[in-house]
Amino acid sequence: MIDFKKTGGIIPAIAQDADTGEVLMLAWMNEEAFAETVRTNRACYFSRSRGKLWRKGEESGHVQEIRGIYIDCDADTILLKVTQVGGAACHEGYKSCFFRQVEGELLRVVADRVFDPQTVYKK
Amino acid sequence: MIDFKKTGGIIPAIAQDADTGEVLMLAWMNEEAFAETVRTNRACYFSRSRGKLWRKGEESGHVQEIRGIYIDCDADTILLKVTQVGGAACHEGYKSCFFRQVEGELLRVVADRVFDPQTVYKK
Repeated sequence: MIDFKKTGGIIPAIAQDADTGEVLMLAWMNEEAFAETVRTNRACYFSRSRGKLWRKGEESGHVQEIRGIYIDCDADTILLKVTQVGGAACHEGYKSCFFRQVEGELLRVVADRVFDPQTVYKK
Repeated sequence: MIDFKKTGGIIPAIAQDADTGEVLMLAWMNEEAFAETVRTNRACYFSRSRGKLWRKGEESGHVQEIRGIYIDCDADTILLKVTQVGGAACHEGYKSCFFRQVEGELLRVVADRVFDPQTVYKK
């Protein structure tokens, strides 16, 4: 059903707020992460940096409840429509990881923080 | 400003309808594609299968006019807010490439075709 082979076993997964349409983040899934996402109805990704499954929200409590799963025409990209518990998908405390806009040679922060990362992650 | 190195020179770029918020497609950009996108204000991707720049809409006329460019927290994913000329981003004739929803073991088509691909691409 999904072509995990094309990119060496992991493919991009976009998480989108099911209510507002805001794009929250992009992460990666292997076949195991996808199966767990379907089974648990919560987003589970594959962390490329840590080389293992990443159960989104495991540490912060900010899980993503699945409202719908979509596949693109080439069957090699996943779109998740989710409810973001805690209101923020980004570990930096913003609702969306895409909180910076490109303006010429500059990046401008275009969102407000929902939480303080130091409080949530105890770092 | 953007980390093109992490994934061997090409990173994912999400195209989202600037007006409706619908996620239209995911494609890939190298540094050259990104620079051309910024310069021309039209989405230019890097085709992994053809190994060269892909000026979206070059053949079909269905270009994507850039309304905003956003970068994620890790600076390795791009989000384009676009106006999709012709009303459809997908080469299969759908507005969005994500026209199929996962339902158990099945995929269900959840959108209507905007155009007939055979007419647009003369195939």
